[in-house]
Amino acid sequence: MSNAITRRVEFHFDFGSPNAYLSHLVIPGIEERTGATFEYVPILLGGVFKATNNASPAVTLQGIRNKPEYQALETQRFLVAHGITRYERNPHFPVNTLQLMRGAVFAQQTDFFEQYVEEMYRHMWAEPKKMDEADVIEAALLESGLPAAEIIAGMQDPAVKQRLIKNTEGSVARGVFGSPSFFVDDELYFGKDRLRDVEEAIGA
Amino acid sequence: MSNAITRRVEFHFDFGSPNAYLSHLVIPGIEERTGATFEYVPILLGGVFKATNNASPAVTLQGIRNKPEYQALETQRFLVAHGITRYERNPHFPVNTLQLMRGAVFAQQTDFFEQYVEEMYRHMWAEPKKMDEADVIEAALLESGLPAAEIIAGMQDPAVKQRLIKNTEGSVARGVFGSPSFFVDDELYFGKDRLRDVEEAIGA
Repeated sequence: MSNAITRRVEFHFDFGSPNAYLSHLVIPGIEERTGATFEYVPILLGGVFKATNNASPAVTLQGIRNKPEYQALETQRFLVAHGITRYERNPHFPVNTLQLMRGAVFAQQTDFFEQYVEEMYRHMWAEPKKMDEADVIEAALLESGLPAAEIIAGMQDPAVKQRLIKNTEGSVARGVFGSPSFFVDDELYFGKDRLRDVEEAIGA
Repeated sequence: MSNAITRRVEFHFDFGSPNAYLSHLVIPGIEERTGATFEYVPILLGGVFKATNNASPAVTLQGIRNKPEYQALETQRFLVAHGITRYERNPHFPVNTLQLMRGAVFAQQTDFFEQYVEEMYRHMWAEPKKMDEADVIEAALLESGLPAAEIIAGMQDPAVKQRLIKNTEGSVARGVFGSPSFFVDDELYFGKDRLRDVEEAIGA
């Protein structure tokens, strides 16, 4: 654990990515085993895709035989391997997460950031809702016991908007092209299946 | 090891895939640790791509920022993790491997199949040559001490040609869409980074 505390571990996340959600569920175990703390960096995945000319698997796998089925199989294996039960495909996928991610940037300045992340992930991938509609977002925030009015106002703060853009640009500048992405110091790891490598890198 | 001998482990390979070559270098260690023997199944990756509407990373990564660099980083990590030194990008990539794979099917009926696989991989990815030209193939076979005339004649055998097509179709029918692909019994694993999962599945 002596190395863990000297390494900076980052999780660049967007609530819109199911693989980021599944990673989020596995991170606490890694933190426990390594003593490291993952820094959650809100980014806009749509912005990453635009900047890198990349697209989500939902797009790139279209029309390819066998590959989507294999990805589903790997997700199933991941769920089993980690004992994950609270995961449900969001029927409104893809959900535009611009407001939710701005809310995450705002929440980082408060003491309810962790609760916000936990709850928004729940509303996206455990009890999935159409979280790009203002009234759905507000109802979800209220249901979670979060200060809805304060957060919704924060989403409109120009400094918050700017910070999300800056996070996203910074992420791309460091090599990110999709989700989920992790850094151990400046070493990039892409994909939920790299979490084992991330854990080893933390301990290395 | 008691389970290993009851499980059928397959490596569906094409000499044209660098990731299949790198997997090939790691397989002996897995065989040693698990007691399993990988059955090498020659397939034509171009045929798989055609049947599944998939394409090689060299094609799909084109024009995407950061992702090709990340793939190169992961290859570098794989080389380091497994102490691989004899790997060199083939400057003639992509090499049409139709003749080489027909040769593999033919060699399966002989006692020099293992030597053929080892040597063709060397000529593709350790001392890379343009292995889709008849004179280059012949010179390579001779240099390797293999019966060149016999193998080249075998490549033209209609039964051999048919078998390669059948292998490829069978592979796609079981879920394959790219290279490298592995089966543990009927469970598909795709990618050199899944070899750890393959090893665990053999032992499971």
